[in-house]
Amino acid sequence: MSAVEEQAIGVSRPRLDSEEKVRGVTRYAADVPHLDLLHARLVLAHDAHARVLSIDRDEALRAPGVIAVFTADDLPLAGNGDSRAEAPLARDEILFAGQPVALVVAESEGAAEDGAELVVVETESLPAVVDLGYAIKPDAPRARMHEETEESDIGSEHADVGGSGEEVPANEIDSPNVAFSVRYRHGDAAAELAASAAVVAGRFRTPWIYQAYLETQVATAAPQPGGGLLVETSTQAPFQTRSQLAGLLGQPLDRVRVMPMPLGGSFGGKWMLPDPLAAAAAVALGRPVRLSLTRSEDFLATNPNPAGEIELRIGATATGELTALDAKIVFERGAIHGWGIEAPAAALIGGVYRWHAHDVRAYGIETNRVGFGAYRAPGAPPAAFALESLLDELAAHLRMDPADLRAKNLAGEGDLRADGKPWSALGTAECLELLRDHPMWRERATLPENEGVGLALGIWFGAGDAAGAGCRLEDDGSITVVTGIADMTGATSAFAAIAAQILGVPVDRVRVVTADTSTAPRSPMVGGSKTTFAVGRAVVAAAEDAKAQLLELAAAELEADPADLEIVDGVVQPRGAPSQGVELVALGQRVASGSLPPVDGRGRASAAPPSSSVAGHLAHIRVDPDTGNVEIVGWVIAQDVGTAINPALCEGQMRGGVAQAIGWALHEELIVDADGQVVNGSFVSYLIPGATDLPPIETLLVELPAPDGPLGAKGIGEACVVAGPAAVANAVAAASGARLRELPMTPERVWAELAAT
Amino acid sequence: MSAVEEQAIGVSRPRLDSEEKVRGVTRYAADVPHLDLLHARLVLAHDAHARVLSIDRDEALRAPGVIAVFTADDLPLAGNGDSRAEAPLARDEILFAGQPVALVVAESEGAAEDGAELVVVETESLPAVVDLGYAIKPDAPRARMHEETEESDIGSEHADVGGSGEEVPANEIDSPNVAFSVRYRHGDAAAELAASAAVVAGRFRTPWIYQAYLETQVATAAPQPGGGLLVETSTQAPFQTRSQLAGLLGQPLDRVRVMPMPLGGSFGGKWMLPDPLAAAAAVALGRPVRLSLTRSEDFLATNPNPAGEIELRIGATATGELTALDAKIVFERGAIHGWGIEAPAAALIGGVYRWHAHDVRAYGIETNRVGFGAYRAPGAPPAAFALESLLDELAAHLRMDPADLRAKNLAGEGDLRADGKPWSALGTAECLELLRDHPMWRERATLPENEGVGLALGIWFGAGDAAGAGCRLEDDGSITVVTGIADMTGATSAFAAIAAQILGVPVDRVRVVTADTSTAPRSPMVGGSKTTFAVGRAVVAAAEDAKAQLLELAAAELEADPADLEIVDGVVQPRGAPSQGVELVALGQRVASGSLPPVDGRGRASAAPPSSSVAGHLAHIRVDPDTGNVEIVGWVIAQDVGTAINPALCEGQMRGGVAQAIGWALHEELIVDADGQVVNGSFVSYLIPGATDLPPIETLLVELPAPDGPLGAKGIGEACVVAGPAAVANAVAAASGARLRELPMTPERVWAELAAT
Repeated sequence: MSAVEEQAIGVSRPRLDSEEKVRGVTRYAADVPHLDLLHARLVLAHDAHARVLSIDRDEALRAPGVIAVFTADDLPLAGNGDSRAEAPLARDEILFAGQPVALVVAESEGAAEDGAELVVVETESLPAVVDLGYAIKPDAPRARMHEETEESDIGSEHADVGGSGEEVPANEIDSPNVAFSVRYRHGDAAAELAASAAVVAGRFRTPWIYQAYLETQVATAAPQPGGGLLVETSTQAPFQTRSQLAGLLGQPLDRVRVMPMPLGGSFGGKWMLPDPLAAAAAVALGRPVRLSLTRSEDFLATNPNPAGEIELRIGATATGELTALDAKIVFERGAIHGWGIEAPAAALIGGVYRWHAHDVRAYGIETNRVGFGAYRAPGAPPAAFALESLLDELAAHLRMDPADLRAKNLAGEGDLRADGKPWSALGTAECLELLRDHPMWRERATLPENEGVGLALGIWFGAGDAAGAGCRLEDDGSITVVTGIADMTGATSAFAAIAAQILGVPVDRVRVVTADTSTAPRSPMVGGSKTTFAVGRAVVAAAEDAKAQLLELAAAELEADPADLEIVDGVVQPRGAPSQGVELVALGQRVASGSLPPVDGRGRASAAPPSSSVAGHLAHIRVDPDTGNVEIVGWVIAQDVGTAINPALCEGQMRGGVAQAIGWALHEELIVDADGQVVNGSFVSYLIPGATDLPPIETLLVELPAPDGPLGAKGIGEACVVAGPAAVANAVAAASGARLRELPMTPERVWAELAAT
Repeated sequence: MSAVEEQAIGVSRPRLDSEEKVRGVTRYAADVPHLDLLHARLVLAHDAHARVLSIDRDEALRAPGVIAVFTADDLPLAGNGDSRAEAPLARDEILFAGQPVALVVAESEGAAEDGAELVVVETESLPAVVDLGYAIKPDAPRARMHEETEESDIGSEHADVGGSGEEVPANEIDSPNVAFSVRYRHGDAAAELAASAAVVAGRFRTPWIYQAYLETQVATAAPQPGGGLLVETSTQAPFQTRSQLAGLLGQPLDRVRVMPMPLGGSFGGKWMLPDPLAAAAAVALGRPVRLSLTRSEDFLATNPNPAGEIELRIGATATGELTALDAKIVFERGAIHGWGIEAPAAALIGGVYRWHAHDVRAYGIETNRVGFGAYRAPGAPPAAFALESLLDELAAHLRMDPADLRAKNLAGEGDLRADGKPWSALGTAECLELLRDHPMWRERATLPENEGVGLALGIWFGAGDAAGAGCRLEDDGSITVVTGIADMTGATSAFAAIAAQILGVPVDRVRVVTADTSTAPRSPMVGGSKTTFAVGRAVVAAAEDAKAQLLELAAAELEADPADLEIVDGVVQPRGAPSQGVELVALGQRVASGSLPPVDGRGRASAAPPSSSVAGHLAHIRVDPDTGNVEIVGWVIAQDVGTAINPALCEGQMRGGVAQAIGWALHEELIVDADGQVVNGSFVSYLIPGATDLPPIETLLVELPAPDGPLGAKGIGEACVVAGPAAVANAVAAASGARLRELPMTPERVWAELAAT
């Protein structure tokens, strides 16, 4: 590898889009100008559960500027199911407070909003179930009268979780609201636990959490002159959106063109919520329609992370060998749901450790709350919160150092997850070693009173997927990489470095373009920590293909064997004879003149086994014993990222993960009152950590190249959030002796626990 | 080849875009809605030749809605040359009446037009040369004071003409306005002519002709939020436009994105005329700017076909063997020009015949008329008009049937053109045979008085070029072909048939998408009869690549050898075992789910030697001896199209060629007065044949597959116009004895010739 090649990856560089974002000129989905654009506004249900008796839109239709008011009955969508995509407006039954009931379309956003206030929805209340504890009771009312008819498969893209598991034991939860259950079992957990020298147990609660992207969800659908629809949308899944919209609109696939717009944050939450509404209205009205959710609509009517409750019991031998775990995991699915968060949580409940036996049951329960969605490592932070908290308690029982207990039991490559699938090679030991050697951990005994350091380890599966990519030589010798992904995390900047590395050109000579679904190489949805990993593999293949083409063309020119050539700093040259090379710009010009065929590399990557990533945290906190307030003093995160394509972007993901982990730990919770009304649906009352709330965060990268990853890279976006809340909980316990089992650890809860300790 | 495969090509089908065009919903470059769009209008020069003393824009800038008035000095374009692209506005010297001098940009087209009328251009007249006969005199004034500094290479894409030829003899034309000359010579033409049994000669004149596309030239340039420019334009050459604009704007290539819009006719005339003006204004103003030429601007200020004069002398032996030709070809280049029409005309002056010797000199002369451009088979109709007219005269001298004389002398594969390059395999004999056997020819002796039938043969080079294309499987089993071409002639419909043929799917399961330059496979400009031929080769390669991928994926599924599989009607199946197949839609769904890699075929075609196409015509006409009016009674055209991918589209090209040939023959001529002012710059006074003016046209296809063509196809758009005017001239001579040597054959000219005969 030459000097230049070494500089493309492994070097921290700004994201390709950072300048335009800093300058404020990025055009998000809501910013694209359209002539004759209509604006849509939702009419949201007030009841948490009710029958719709009538919807009176006459007055709204008389309001100035209002063009149309759609209800479920007149939206031109073909689906008969109850999924959010198929039934974006409530039909007969309102299932949660905030559910969209009607769509008002007007000449301006203001007119649409005024119109929405004039739509009168007459309802008859039904018993509402807005509390998970109530919902799982045998005599709880049913949260929905209709059966769900169809499941979307988009959610399954989050994680590749093993099989369908076993049947759960009858009557562990006996409720009409059980919508899903799965059991993973290995060995005799009960016997192992009974024989264990130490056993600890607890019940852990985690809340509904709003993804809190800065850009609300937006879709603009514009009818095209020759028929068909262009949909510009804040989506993670352009190809899936195309398929689903085509199906819903009863159109051939090629009549729907989806352009994924730059995402102003997404974190798992953005697919097919505004899209069907904007599309259906645009088709009905023959004009472009934009539905750009208000922050309030986005809080009330999208798809936040669901609340969960985990009862976990774990045991160990006297020497600290973990024996078994028994877990009952319950997630509150809300009213409308299309995929399963329970299986990933169940598969991860054993963490990064080896167990003799496990028995894990997981349940999804319907309630009259908004349907849940994905949020960065869905299911994993609650599982890690439970497990990593109990590991600290177990260490205390065994009088072991918590890090030693963990180190003694780490799972390695080929060990099985709770769902029976094998782990890939993991950098857990290396991460743990970095944390144990860190002064924050080594010197924690010297901290002042009320301060403590917590340690916790977390993991995310990662995901493989098939992907395509293109890699072209331009007339000026520069390189263009084309994919069809929405860039959620800076992955396109990684693609540029990958292509530059392989092609031997400076990174700034590579441009990455996102094409719409009509012309893009087929690309997977982004999410599940798969983008850099799976699409990066396609970019590697495309760049290698382009390189082979370049070498072949240059070989003919230089009368050399392609195998004797290399590309260094934009020049194809015989190895060791740089003066005899031909510049890429010369080849590009010959392509432009037609004397050489185009250089057009293509990458077709099959789904590879995912390379899971591990992240460990040290949280240094201070508890105010008078108020229960927890202050984060410092943080260290160590993560196994495989090869760091662009270390700055890896660190960016890690810092972001820590920030959101602090939100989980201390602040975030979507609260409803007894009637199911969201009480903190705005950023005034729903707190997320801002930049000034964050402690100094030290990032430590462990680089164990992933065998199947692009140039060894792993997908890293999710592992970094998983164990953060647990690290804070362990730190609080270390600082104060208070063991918090519910998130967020608000001052009230901490104070109450301190008082009870 | 299976039954289904046979149905994809060779079957007449409507163009893919015909329905939307018939419905009037096609969005041309002028139709794309833009918010905040500014409109530009040109200020055109009145003088044919003048020095610019001052340009006063104060009053224009005070007019309501006017935003800016640009002159050559403040347009932000980097070029220093005099080409139309580099100097789209006159600098110090006005070179023709109608030359753009200033660009007024306003909030509406009306405001821009009002503003343009208020710009005052003060000039000092210079001697103008607006007549070719005057321009070639030794004492003629120079048409331009500046030297031209740079030549564009776009024009060279029209035809691949051999070498640079020889020096012309000194003083054959002694004029300061000779801008170009070339000589092709073989053998001793003078000696051969002197020894010939029969020699005929004549001087033939052809006029300036406006391409008369229905859609005037339009470009819209829109600054993009992150920087850079999107240019939606009625261009034949998106990639070349990108390169040139990037250079002119001093921007990296990737900052200019060119979207070729559907063309409302082009015929060779559309590249880089409105584009630099719209782009420069948009960059200067930071808002989208559209320059949509009015019909008057388009008539006066674009790039019509240039006038020409050919002095030709040909000879034959007593038995009708052609001996030699001597030709002096002169084209009037006008004032601004970037490529050579003379060499193609010189290379084609020998027609489809074999000669012992030739001596061809061709000259390009500058005058104070608009710079010339390409028009369908540039240079060929004048050459054929001269040659095919003289061949009829030679046959009369030799008392031979004109068809027999031609048949005796046909060039074949490997015979050399006048420029020394070899002909490809030609279907000339087959075309001629069809015409000789046609009742219109066989029974011409029985026609009433004043009627006659003329026969003539013409040829166009065709052109090879390098090209890229993509071919993808979609989720629903349909196929998408992606290229970056502007579709001038229906070539994308041919691509669909080609892909369907190769992939064994119904044609309606193939969609063809034109991508912009940021994501498209590199594609050549369209023109020169190269699109179906050159890009079609890339589509073949892409479809074959996709097919190989499909067979491989299906083979794994079916546990078969890919070599034993075929695709029939959308099903991959073992040969002879259709029931065991796997449907493309099933494979598409597996790709969509990520369990199979994307199917993404790529075609990279090198430039192939062109396969020239021959077309022969029979024109049946009636001359009114009292008025000189020529009425076209009937027409037969026979053309060698290679494999007819879509016979209806071949016939469409042939009919269009005949229609434009009739325009050449009888109607079209851009006329200037003694001051160089265009006197018929509108469709009121510039006549083109309308649908109701056309005779019944019978099309006869000769299908000799071209070895290098895609599935054997040739490029056919140009050959069909070449000999049409000559056929009419021969028919007029047959009907009346009047030999017209100047086009168009207006009633005045015919009457005058009849009177002189």
